[in-house]
Amino acid sequence: MSAITSPLNPEAQKVVAAALQGALVDLLDLSLLGKQAHWNVIGHNFRSLHLQLDEIVAAAREHADTVAERAVAIGANPDGRSSTLAKTTEVHQLEAGYINDGKVVAALTDILESIVRRMRERIEATDEPDPVTQDILIAITQDLEKHHWMLQAQR
Amino acid sequence: MSAITSPLNPEAQKVVAAALQGALVDLLDLSLLGKQAHWNVIGHNFRSLHLQLDEIVAAAREHADTVAERAVAIGANPDGRSSTLAKTTEVHQLEAGYINDGKVVAALTDILESIVRRMRERIEATDEPDPVTQDILIAITQDLEKHHWMLQAQR
Amino acid sequence: MSAITSPLNPEAQKVVAAALQGALVDLLDLSLLGKQAHWNVIGHNFRSLHLQLDEIVAAAREHADTVAERAVAIGANPDGRSSTLAKTTEVHQLEAGYINDGKVVAALTDILESIVRRMRERIEATDEPDPVTQDILIAITQDLEKHHWMLQAQR
Amino acid sequence: MSAITSPLNPEAQKVVAAALQGALVDLLDLSLLGKQAHWNVIGHNFRSLHLQLDEIVAAAREHADTVAERAVAIGANPDGRSSTLAKTTEVHQLEAGYINDGKVVAALTDILESIVRRMRERIEATDEPDPVTQDILIAITQDLEKHHWMLQAQR
Amino acid sequence: MSAITSPLNPEAQKVVAAALQGALVDLLDLSLLGKQAHWNVIGHNFRSLHLQLDEIVAAAREHADTVAERAVAIGANPDGRSSTLAKTTEVHQLEAGYINDGKVVAALTDILESIVRRMRERIEATDEPDPVTQDILIAITQDLEKHHWMLQAQR
Amino acid sequence: MSAITSPLNPEAQKVVAAALQGALVDLLDLSLLGKQAHWNVIGHNFRSLHLQLDEIVAAAREHADTVAERAVAIGANPDGRSSTLAKTTEVHQLEAGYINDGKVVAALTDILESIVRRMRERIEATDEPDPVTQDILIAITQDLEKHHWMLQAQR
Amino acid sequence: MSAITSPLNPEAQKVVAAALQGALVDLLDLSLLGKQAHWNVIGHNFRSLHLQLDEIVAAAREHADTVAERAVAIGANPDGRSSTLAKTTEVHQLEAGYINDGKVVAALTDILESIVRRMRERIEATDEPDPVTQDILIAITQDLEKHHWMLQAQR
Amino acid sequence: MSAITSPLNPEAQKVVAAALQGALVDLLDLSLLGKQAHWNVIGHNFRSLHLQLDEIVAAAREHADTVAERAVAIGANPDGRSSTLAKTTEVHQLEAGYINDGKVVAALTDILESIVRRMRERIEATDEPDPVTQDILIAITQDLEKHHWMLQAQR
Amino acid sequence: MSAITSPLNPEAQKVVAAALQGALVDLLDLSLLGKQAHWNVIGHNFRSLHLQLDEIVAAAREHADTVAERAVAIGANPDGRSSTLAKTTEVHQLEAGYINDGKVVAALTDILESIVRRMRERIEATDEPDPVTQDILIAITQDLEKHHWMLQAQR
Amino acid sequence: MSAITSPLNPEAQKVVAAALQGALVDLLDLSLLGKQAHWNVIGHNFRSLHLQLDEIVAAAREHADTVAERAVAIGANPDGRSSTLAKTTEVHQLEAGYINDGKVVAALTDILESIVRRMRERIEATDEPDPVTQDILIAITQDLEKHHWMLQAQR
Amino acid sequence: MSAITSPLNPEAQKVVAAALQGALVDLLDLSLLGKQAHWNVIGHNFRSLHLQLDEIVAAAREHADTVAERAVAIGANPDGRSSTLAKTTEVHQLEAGYINDGKVVAALTDILESIVRRMRERIEATDEPDPVTQDILIAITQDLEKHHWMLQAQR
Amino acid sequence: MSAITSPLNPEAQKVVAAALQGALVDLLDLSLLGKQAHWNVIGHNFRSLHLQLDEIVAAAREHADTVAERAVAIGANPDGRSSTLAKTTEVHQLEAGYINDGKVVAALTDILESIVRRMRERIEATDEPDPVTQDILIAITQDLEKHHWMLQAQR
Repeated sequence: MSAITSPLNPEAQKVVAAALQGALVDLLDLSLLGKQAHWNVIGHNFRSLHLQLDEIVAAAREHADTVAERAVAIGANPDGRSSTLAKTTEVHQLEAGYINDGKVVAALTDILESIVRRMRERIEATDEPDPVTQDILIAITQDLEKHHWMLQAQR
Repeated sequence: MSAITSPLNPEAQKVVAAALQGALVDLLDLSLLGKQAHWNVIGHNFRSLHLQLDEIVAAAREHADTVAERAVAIGANPDGRSSTLAKTTEVHQLEAGYINDGKVVAALTDILESIVRRMRERIEATDEPDPVTQDILIAITQDLEKHHWMLQAQR
Repeated sequence: MSAITSPLNPEAQKVVAAALQGALVDLLDLSLLGKQAHWNVIGHNFRSLHLQLDEIVAAAREHADTVAERAVAIGANPDGRSSTLAKTTEVHQLEAGYINDGKVVAALTDILESIVRRMRERIEATDEPDPVTQDILIAITQDLEKHHWMLQAQR
Repeated sequence: MSAITSPLNPEAQKVVAAALQGALVDLLDLSLLGKQAHWNVIGHNFRSLHLQLDEIVAAAREHADTVAERAVAIGANPDGRSSTLAKTTEVHQLEAGYINDGKVVAALTDILESIVRRMRERIEATDEPDPVTQDILIAITQDLEKHHWMLQAQR
Repeated sequence: MSAITSPLNPEAQKVVAAALQGALVDLLDLSLLGKQAHWNVIGHNFRSLHLQLDEIVAAAREHADTVAERAVAIGANPDGRSSTLAKTTEVHQLEAGYINDGKVVAALTDILESIVRRMRERIEATDEPDPVTQDILIAITQDLEKHHWMLQAQR
Repeated sequence: MSAITSPLNPEAQKVVAAALQGALVDLLDLSLLGKQAHWNVIGHNFRSLHLQLDEIVAAAREHADTVAERAVAIGANPDGRSSTLAKTTEVHQLEAGYINDGKVVAALTDILESIVRRMRERIEATDEPDPVTQDILIAITQDLEKHHWMLQAQR
Repeated sequence: MSAITSPLNPEAQKVVAAALQGALVDLLDLSLLGKQAHWNVIGHNFRSLHLQLDEIVAAAREHADTVAERAVAIGANPDGRSSTLAKTTEVHQLEAGYINDGKVVAALTDILESIVRRMRERIEATDEPDPVTQDILIAITQDLEKHHWMLQAQR
Repeated sequence: MSAITSPLNPEAQKVVAAALQGALVDLLDLSLLGKQAHWNVIGHNFRSLHLQLDEIVAAAREHADTVAERAVAIGANPDGRSSTLAKTTEVHQLEAGYINDGKVVAALTDILESIVRRMRERIEATDEPDPVTQDILIAITQDLEKHHWMLQAQR
Repeated sequence: MSAITSPLNPEAQKVVAAALQGALVDLLDLSLLGKQAHWNVIGHNFRSLHLQLDEIVAAAREHADTVAERAVAIGANPDGRSSTLAKTTEVHQLEAGYINDGKVVAALTDILESIVRRMRERIEATDEPDPVTQDILIAITQDLEKHHWMLQAQR
Repeated sequence: MSAITSPLNPEAQKVVAAALQGALVDLLDLSLLGKQAHWNVIGHNFRSLHLQLDEIVAAAREHADTVAERAVAIGANPDGRSSTLAKTTEVHQLEAGYINDGKVVAALTDILESIVRRMRERIEATDEPDPVTQDILIAITQDLEKHHWMLQAQR
Repeated sequence: MSAITSPLNPEAQKVVAAALQGALVDLLDLSLLGKQAHWNVIGHNFRSLHLQLDEIVAAAREHADTVAERAVAIGANPDGRSSTLAKTTEVHQLEAGYINDGKVVAALTDILESIVRRMRERIEATDEPDPVTQDILIAITQDLEKHHWMLQAQR
Repeated sequence: MSAITSPLNPEAQKVVAAALQGALVDLLDLSLLGKQAHWNVIGHNFRSLHLQLDEIVAAAREHADTVAERAVAIGANPDGRSSTLAKTTEVHQLEAGYINDGKVVAALTDILESIVRRMRERIEATDEPDPVTQDILIAITQDLEKHHWMLQAQR
């Protein structure tokens, strides 16, 4: 049952599918951790961070959807189940319980920095096999780098 | 570091916190599986299900947020990290890859049925210790039972 | 052909189904009579009542939909056909033809008073078998009692 | 008490009032049966029909209001009470209980076909006595014939 | 300088232009008198009438624009200057100064009744020469008759 | 019947009422002439002027309403009937029939210039007796002078 | 395969179907030529025409949809494929390449004039067999004649 | 003059009326103090608090309206005059003049904590006599506890 | 702790601060009494007044905020606590319990009249020391005088 | 008459213009065939496809506009006339008359597949001469591939 | 080429033009410096200031437009070119590079204070020659003083 | 103080920062000159250009913000102060005073042409060091080239 024909040849498809699945895991886990911090953050900057984290979560969710739908569009199956996330995520995890506002800023800055590094590798990897996918990854990276700046600026 | 004072006594708080954390895991995992199906579903009913699943995901995300914010409001820490989801979820998981539309309907109907069963146990459990939390769980259950009917009606 | 599985046991389901069907008839008939008055009212307060009646009709229609969808969600079939309404309604009917504004206020106040009384009986009846349904009936009753006050206040 | 003066002479008024009252009964009963099917439909096309039926109900309600307000505007009293509907409706009724999706399509197609036939007779009947009313009936018929096509197309 | 070519022959154009100019004067004067009453009305029903009159004015202005633009579209020049209104209006004028609410209802009801009578003559007059214009006049008449009922109903 | 008590003493009221009535006539007649040109303008700049004139009319109508409601608020009766307009307007009138775009610009520029001159006299006249009314007239004048520039700039 | 039953008898249906198919071709070709001019127009009036042409295209597309859906509603198949348009269109075509603004106004005025002429023939043709279709054609013609004026006025 | 009939018996009504009047005073005084802090707060967190306080005020005003309208709906007269507030409020008052941001957080957290404590007593008190009122108080308490967390989290 | 530097000299600031604090008390007490009447009014005009009073309350609240924020902007501390209102208000208070619609109109008309009188004194007082504050007071007075007329007109 | 100067050299302009004209024909013909199917589709999936096809048409129209405006922006004349479409389209045509839902899915899937293939050739062709145009074509291709998946998924 | 006639005499015009040009330079430079800080600010309060600065920029841009359009309306030419700004600005400039959040608050507070001082001089200067312009300057000053408070409050 | 870490190596960062700073100056100066023309343009095309220039200004402002925020996101400091603009702008300046509409079109066309030429050099320069920035510059260039065409087309 391989329902969707791909506009790419098998080899290109394999590379692009891997890049998209990697991005999907990064973005879904970012959305879960963003919410985790949104709920458990405490400190003087609570309200400001509480709101900012929700914007990051909203962006992460929307980008995840774009990435996953692009995967199916090239005939690959995105996998965003919790077990897959838990097993394959490369995102550094937060501790359970309350998190101080300063720590939230530091941790999320690092998380965004590492996701951006992997996104840039994926941009390179997809350049040849599929400029259409590359274009999507570039746009997402631009947005993540903006959120990275906006978090780091308040360190 | 136990920042938020609770309107409940310790015992009541423990029971209510457990109910809310259970609901949180159910709802977050429902949102992930709903998206998984939203992306991988195929079959004649593709478009109709693709849209319906997104409504379920939207509801699950909103309810999860309400439930987690209620947890902090009573001085408990919600935990929605992917590893926690993967380890503690009681939701029956979907297979990877394409899923036939009929199978999506059947699987999600069962998933909603089991979540509803657990939600009703939580409604009972919170009746005594915190009617405010109970009220939230009742409203969410009503919505989940409606989605359950709307899926099952097309079996 | 009993398509929808119920979250309730058969006995509970029977009691709750009866309460919901009773509420459905009350609310649908209220929407028809509200429109009847909306069209046929005359008098100095015409415009005010004409608008107020449409708000009551809108509320009645929305509550009727909630109640009927709740019925299916617990595996019972709502019946809102005109013959069923005509045969089983307990709502006091309006005369045909023009209705004076004072009479509209008096008649609708009485109608809402009697519906509220039956709704409160249904709230009691569903307390044990299904708190989820009870919660719906409570919310509807609150709204009906508000409309009752707003009509009676202009007597 | 005949409050509203008519722009029509008594004879014309009588013909036009009859056409409008007939249309009102047809449209109100269509709205009740559309909701009845909206709630009780089951089958693979559930969601699609559930949504489509609500559009038909919304149209029927709006047209009923237009028709009834036109009646008062020409000095006649519209009657939309449940007993009047039950006694005078010419619309073929649905059975109680669950209705299969295929059956819903077939039954509603027939219902719309018969209402359209009566509406066209009313268009002819009002041509002479009141072109203003005729214009309303023409616009409603156009909309009903569109809904008729959209249902029949999925048979 | 006869800039716009007409889709009508000269004779038809002449009849239709006269009907449209007559309607324009009726509608513009209605909008001025509606405002006059909107400002100067006093009495227990002040607020209700104040709002209702603004709806009549809004309708009159929109219909006047439709009618005037229709005139140019058939190659005739609409004339809506104050001197033309003052000289050719057939609308019964209001007294200057405060107007009691009851008197407002009575006067505007009569004004609308007389405008409707002239509109119906225009509908007949344009039936043969231009069904397109007639369609516009029918729609406007329907709206005016509705406003007439809504005023008269509160007498 | 002098229903509304005035926050001003009789003398002040008299001066202010005269200023407001003058402004009302100017603004209502501007709205009528703006529409007259909106309909009858022809030439290369037709569309641009057609739209711009509607913005002037909208502004004139809104300012007229403000001015008239201010009059009643100080216990004076505004008079905006067509005969009053025709008799007392100081606005230079347009010819009937098509108007060339260049001529529209020239004529309306002059009209606005003369209205502005009279408005500035009213600003001076109301300075002492009622700063509240003066503030309204100042705001309207600012808007009219802006429209004056925007018309004149395209000469 | 003649899926949709017609509310018209075969003869009436044939006449009405022909009128609707003719209108469809006129309107779709108008939308294509409107866009052609929207892109290729140059001259001092560029911006004004560029915007106005898009309004004409939007109107043409919407009317085309109405006309085609009416065709299916009476059991006839609309045909809007490019080859059908090219073969059967009676609309005078534009040259390729840049088009001067003056020429655009002249050409589109003529195109609208000829379409209106054919629409009026269709209004007459459908009067007897189907007043519902006629009503649609009348409304479309009114709009086209308005656009005709608005173009011609700037010649 | 006891205009509104109550759905409750006199005893139940008395208990419920007291609970509602108590809630009204708490909520209105919260809205006044929230504004007081909104205006007089200074410090690094000024902007964040200035906005957050307005959300608390908006919530308090809306809840106060709900509570007061519920009172009339059960036939009791809500009293929200400034003298009543000043005499009966149990809310701890703020000092006049500038308030440091840290102090605002501390004071409002305490105020919300004490209001929540009283609201929970009212929830218990109304359980028996009127579940409809109880439902309203539960929903308000949930919202207040959420605001309490959001303030305390930034201590 | 005198955080905000003033654009005014000390003497001017003192006069202006007094005017603003006076206006704040007037406006906040108006908002409380408006709500008091909004809830307790009865009589034929109930609905009309119920809605109108809410518009007055909304205006009073918005003006109060403007006035208080202006106070801080000139370096003065607004005081809107319930005890301050109760002690310093010059607004005539309403009785507790139901209020007849006629009485509501009369009482609120008087209240607005007295507030307007004080506002006009404040306009005079601030003319010299701060035209910016005066401009705010003028705009608020205009709005209050409009509401005064609209209430009085229905006496 | 070559009005618009190009940011590209003549050779680059020629290649890019050809790619854009090819894309324009593909997209306009897709919009016409999408509508053709939107109107003539029948079968169980009618409603779902009817809506989905309109989304494809909306996308095709918007992309066509982007592509044509890009052409003029580089100094080339887009040609979207029906005769040009009929002569140069490479899109496989649909038969006239009713089309079964399954056939619609299959035919449109193939059409999108072939358009995507040509778009990818154009992406390659424009890479060197104009990365700005290439970026537009990439974005359009991404959207078309998404629609391709969404159609094929329901085969 | 002095296209726009002035409602002011030459002398008055000269004074008013100077005031408006001074305000224009102040406001445009404020918008540039606000953006400069919006981009380069760092520190714990980053997000809060980043948002607040954009509100100041939006206000400055809107006020600049009002001031410039007022200039043309009185027949004077506003000059907002970068060289004019650089040469004539009296606003204290920011250093290049990152700016600490505390420093941003201090610098912008000072900048607003000095602009307000000059605006108040302009209010005085225009009082005699043009109350209409004065009114604009008063409204802008009020807004700037509010922003001044909101910045200074967080020092 | 170099707060933001860069995703680029120092060399790449230097090249990209220069490209972004150059774009920022171009876009900010375009926004200032666009406004300069927006205010001072005169001639028959006044209104059309007045509106079109505001769209160019809005685009320039939004692009400037994107470009400056991208600069900080890669760890570089954007500089948009008036002195920097005046010193480093390469945009050809407009004369002070009224500008004829024809001259505005010519001057702005040239300005856009030169900015586009520089943007294309920046696209090439950033291709290697940072495809994310390049993507932003490409999108902006596309928009500028569209505005260039729309201005030039009316020459």
